[in-house]
Amino acid sequence: MIGVLSNAGVMEGITNSAEEQQPSTPLSNSWSNKQESSKNEKPKPVGGFVLVHAGAGYHSESKAKEYKHVCKRACQRAVDRLKAGALAVEAVTAALVELEDSPFTNAGMGSNLNLSGGIECDASIMDGKSLHYGAVGAISGIKNPVLVANRLLSEAQRGKLSAGRIPPCFLVGRGAHDWAVSHGIPPCPSEKMATKFSLSAYKRNKRKMELAEKLDTGHNQTKKRRQSCENENGSGCLDTVGAVVVDLEGNVAAAVSSGGLAMKHPGRVGQAAHYGCGCWAENTCNMNPYSTAVSTSGCGEHLIRTMLARECSTAMQSEDAHQALLEAMQNKFISSPFLASEDRVLGGVIVLRCCRCVEAPPSQNIQGILVEFLWSHTTESMCVGYMSAQDSKAKTHISRLPPGTVPGQCLAIEGGVCRLSVVE
Amino acid sequence: MIGVLSNAGVMEGITNSAEEQQPSTPLSNSWSNKQESSKNEKPKPVGGFVLVHAGAGYHSESKAKEYKHVCKRACQRAVDRLKAGALAVEAVTAALVELEDSPFTNAGMGSNLNLSGGIECDASIMDGKSLHYGAVGAISGIKNPVLVANRLLSEAQRGKLSAGRIPPCFLVGRGAHDWAVSHGIPPCPSEKMATKFSLSAYKRNKRKMELAEKLDTGHNQTKKRRQSCENENGSGCLDTVGAVVVDLEGNVAAAVSSGGLAMKHPGRVGQAAHYGCGCWAENTCNMNPYSTAVSTSGCGEHLIRTMLARECSTAMQSEDAHQALLEAMQNKFISSPFLASEDRVLGGVIVLRCCRCVEAPPSQNIQGILVEFLWSHTTESMCVGYMSAQDSKAKTHISRLPPGTVPGQCLAIEGGVCRLSVVE
Repeated sequence: MIGVLSNAGVMEGITNSAEEQQPSTPLSNSWSNKQESSKNEKPKPVGGFVLVHAGAGYHSESKAKEYKHVCKRACQRAVDRLKAGALAVEAVTAALVELEDSPFTNAGMGSNLNLSGGIECDASIMDGKSLHYGAVGAISGIKNPVLVANRLLSEAQRGKLSAGRIPPCFLVGRGAHDWAVSHGIPPCPSEKMATKFSLSAYKRNKRKMELAEKLDTGHNQTKKRRQSCENENGSGCLDTVGAVVVDLEGNVAAAVSSGGLAMKHPGRVGQAAHYGCGCWAENTCNMNPYSTAVSTSGCGEHLIRTMLARECSTAMQSEDAHQALLEAMQNKFISSPFLASEDRVLGGVIVLRCCRCVEAPPSQNIQGILVEFLWSHTTESMCVGYMSAQDSKAKTHISRLPPGTVPGQCLAIEGGVCRLSVVE
Repeated sequence: MIGVLSNAGVMEGITNSAEEQQPSTPLSNSWSNKQESSKNEKPKPVGGFVLVHAGAGYHSESKAKEYKHVCKRACQRAVDRLKAGALAVEAVTAALVELEDSPFTNAGMGSNLNLSGGIECDASIMDGKSLHYGAVGAISGIKNPVLVANRLLSEAQRGKLSAGRIPPCFLVGRGAHDWAVSHGIPPCPSEKMATKFSLSAYKRNKRKMELAEKLDTGHNQTKKRRQSCENENGSGCLDTVGAVVVDLEGNVAAAVSSGGLAMKHPGRVGQAAHYGCGCWAENTCNMNPYSTAVSTSGCGEHLIRTMLARECSTAMQSEDAHQALLEAMQNKFISSPFLASEDRVLGGVIVLRCCRCVEAPPSQNIQGILVEFLWSHTTESMCVGYMSAQDSKAKTHISRLPPGTVPGQCLAIEGGVCRLSVVE
């Protein structure tokens, strides 16, 4: 049973582009791979579902193909891991590595350059099963920041260090780099992480800044700031990447990785390294009927101050997932009292939630996981991809705000439903 | 009207030491300074209330005097600013500077040394009026990290930077240091920030670590970790500092500053620089009947993963402040599903909440602010101080768990009430 979520229930003032841009075709069901069952008495179910994003921002038609390709490859990587029996947290890491390795995304290879022309990355990961979390901020010279975040998470799960010291969950800067290298993650010269595209964007931004500051000479500071803020439509917020995964045991995981805003101050850490802001994952428990996983993209400061990942996760415990996300994006983001002074609130989220359901005919002892997945953004566009372990390839999509609507004030929301089934 | 909050309503399994350790005497009322009213038609009310902490951890009797002294001075500093008409956010910064400057606290001067013998500090501040936030993580060579956090907050309030760039709310490491210096905050050589005490603690800890690692040779890694975790009772978590303030306009602010865990890995960032974890402040609004401010102390990773500052702030919107904090500390901290694998959950909070109330006789047009203030901790002790603008000096107190109770599994909770009044 598969379907596309209803896109009705649009709140006043909210633009909903879903009618034009629905996910192409329904996903097919996932079934566990029976061939692998022979070794153990009770085989571990393999399979699951992944949803990735390559950023909320602006994706030109000319680059759309590249973004879709990388989303497709990232989904495939996660599914390969899921099929090999990996848990959600491993699969989500695999997806992130692929997204980081693309020179087109603003994460890992090809990250935005900062004010000094350096590359400093943020990444974090959360495991819904253990509720452990790992993050790195402003890390340089590491090709895949998500691998460091993932290693921090797994080291923390192993318990205390010598002399009772508590293992860190968040490392930044040089210390994060050195910790990574001492834990076997190879360093990568920063110059190898810059691309022709990121270097030319840096030069262009630098000229733009110099021009803006030149033009402003003689004006007072307040006026200068007000003027320049009209020129920006979030192009510097592009291409943060992330993924959410559920495995066939029903465990969820989420991750996010970013090179940060173009021309940011060195040392600036964005939402991708902020607990509750960049990603969130929580398996179902007494209090929560659903397992939820969220990954965000957009302007870090907006996503931090609204703690958007955690807010969306909390909202997802309501009955109607679509309506809940719509309301969360409207009330906890666009109209958030934390961003009252902002004229445009720029960001996007991918969300999945799932619950177990027992299905007919009961004699077959089929257990299923119902997965609802959604994306929503206030930016001009957002590139997503999704795939279940039984699909032959991923579906990708660039969601756009309808023409004429104002980014940062309106939102688009879309999604789908898929059922993963396991014969026990 | 002043009183001490009831300490009844103790939940099963919770230790409540308040009966032995109640705040000494009631606070006196605050009245606006009428002499200052002459210049303007409607004078800005001056005054307010401050509550500070010098850490949740273990305070030996021999050092109690020093901790109380620094809390007293910090309260006085904040009150001096409030009396001069400063808003809550300025007053809370003044208190933090005093707390950081003490060589006895683990913040600013005298911070714990990390694994490499360096000093890296975390600090953050939140303004309940604007809901803006500023934080620095793993910053070296700055005597007062809270001044950098405060400057980030005020710069962010001024709006966008040139070319529409969004100002950062969180800076770390070298970049944070350079930003601070370029914004007029003087650098301080790290060797001047180490004290005789912090250096000897470093040597002692280093020996302890080496011994622990030597003893463990031949044991497997898991066993080693388990063993050593029994030895620790949180002495490395001591002395993070923080404050919460309300001014006579009813604005709240909160701040926190820490040198982090002793022997932490370089680059490790604790709760003091984590949004929602180290401090929280929200003025009253449509949804919230109370203004709330919270500052935390303890083991950073525990406070991060439970987002304790924000959780306590949310809880404080319930009717019974004492009961709400008790439940938050029990359910969202000690028994938090996020810390299910931890045997001891170590931390403490200071909390204030306030609301306006019109008082009899109405003919006098007296407007009052009712302030409820509380502290709670699972550590052996917590040192606090508090003062209203009309008090001649601050009251200080070292709250302790009752003898025989287990730190990290039980809690102490205490507090008081004070009414600030303004004649308009």
